[in-house]
Amino acid sequence: MSDREMDSSTEQSNRNTSTVNIYPLSNYYFGSKQSLNIKDETQAEHAQRMKANYATHGLRTCVEAVLVVELHKHPHLLVLQVRNSVFKLPGGRLRPGESEVDGLKRKLSSKLCDDEDGSDTDWEVGECVGMWWRSDFETLAYPYFPTSLRRPKECTKLFLVKLPVSKRLIVPKNLKLLAVPFYGIHENDKTYGQVISGVPMLLSKFIFNIIED
Amino acid sequence: MSDREMDSSTEQSNRNTSTVNIYPLSNYYFGSKQSLNIKDETQAEHAQRMKANYATHGLRTCVEAVLVVELHKHPHLLVLQVRNSVFKLPGGRLRPGESEVDGLKRKLSSKLCDDEDGSDTDWEVGECVGMWWRSDFETLAYPYFPTSLRRPKECTKLFLVKLPVSKRLIVPKNLKLLAVPFYGIHENDKTYGQVISGVPMLLSKFIFNIIED
Repeated sequence: MSDREMDSSTEQSNRNTSTVNIYPLSNYYFGSKQSLNIKDETQAEHAQRMKANYATHGLRTCVEAVLVVELHKHPHLLVLQVRNSVFKLPGGRLRPGESEVDGLKRKLSSKLCDDEDGSDTDWEVGECVGMWWRSDFETLAYPYFPTSLRRPKECTKLFLVKLPVSKRLIVPKNLKLLAVPFYGIHENDKTYGQVISGVPMLLSKFIFNIIED
Repeated sequence: MSDREMDSSTEQSNRNTSTVNIYPLSNYYFGSKQSLNIKDETQAEHAQRMKANYATHGLRTCVEAVLVVELHKHPHLLVLQVRNSVFKLPGGRLRPGESEVDGLKRKLSSKLCDDEDGSDTDWEVGECVGMWWRSDFETLAYPYFPTSLRRPKECTKLFLVKLPVSKRLIVPKNLKLLAVPFYGIHENDKTYGQVISGVPMLLSKFIFNIIED
């Protein structure tokens, strides 16, 4: 489909709709750096550690980035693959007292930049597009506040992060950065988990303006 | 859970997050009016009519309302049930040249007010929360623009409509207005279809501020 056809057929839909510019995958340079320390623990050990953390710090807040690029005229989401199995959005847990935007910039720098100390704050953190709540550390997350429970244990907030026209993305050796098409993610929670598989729907209100060089 | 507990556990999540006030279901009066003319047609007849309309008018744009009330301290979505089977959000197709907001107000007046001519425009149409694209009139909708297709045939836009503290809702006799809990809708596309079952996720970025009298 030509840009002109897309313009004409979406013209009426553009009112009240936000547009996001996305750039070709080939505009980005992908490199690698030293492995990140990833805790090697069983699910039970993980749950145990989360419970201990909750007792000390209370609600665990995680922030994750939704980064979109263009390939074959279709939006693709950048995801990290851990140990050739689990897929994750770039992000992580906030430090006590840290703001969401600062925490997300720090996590993006540690996972996607060659700059270790998180001083590369050249990330345009946009609006929150979704939130997931977890009532304990072993079950599913819910896209609404779990009223049936006394206290939620974890909140994960997804933010749209607008990539510049080009950027160097330097990823720890034990992680892989992949660009996966929206049509491959949508409703595919078996492969990508419920949070990632919901991203195309969370972004459905945006019109992606594909900018080709 | 008391309001105070909710305040404290969500305190850190409130930054960068929009709050939406919702009111108890009992604040709204539900009445009925004359049946609405619903086309009695088979799926094939429906597809045929849609194709003919597309040939004449091009892309079909539908606007639908997401209306939320409180019951048992949990958000509930207002849905219309047609013939004790299909569930739909209140809304419908735009007239040629009609704006999305005007069209949605007209549809809300015809389906939820005793005022037939759509002059009750007392509806606060908020932001677009999601969009679904259909490439033909028989298949599934997608939450992204279907690049593989030459022209999409239908676009459905969902808008958050903020209900006032109380309102009379007058529904045609052949439709039923139901308040269904988010936990019953989420991932339940078998009962509610893909558009409605996705609503809790589309609204996950909002904190619902439950206002009790």
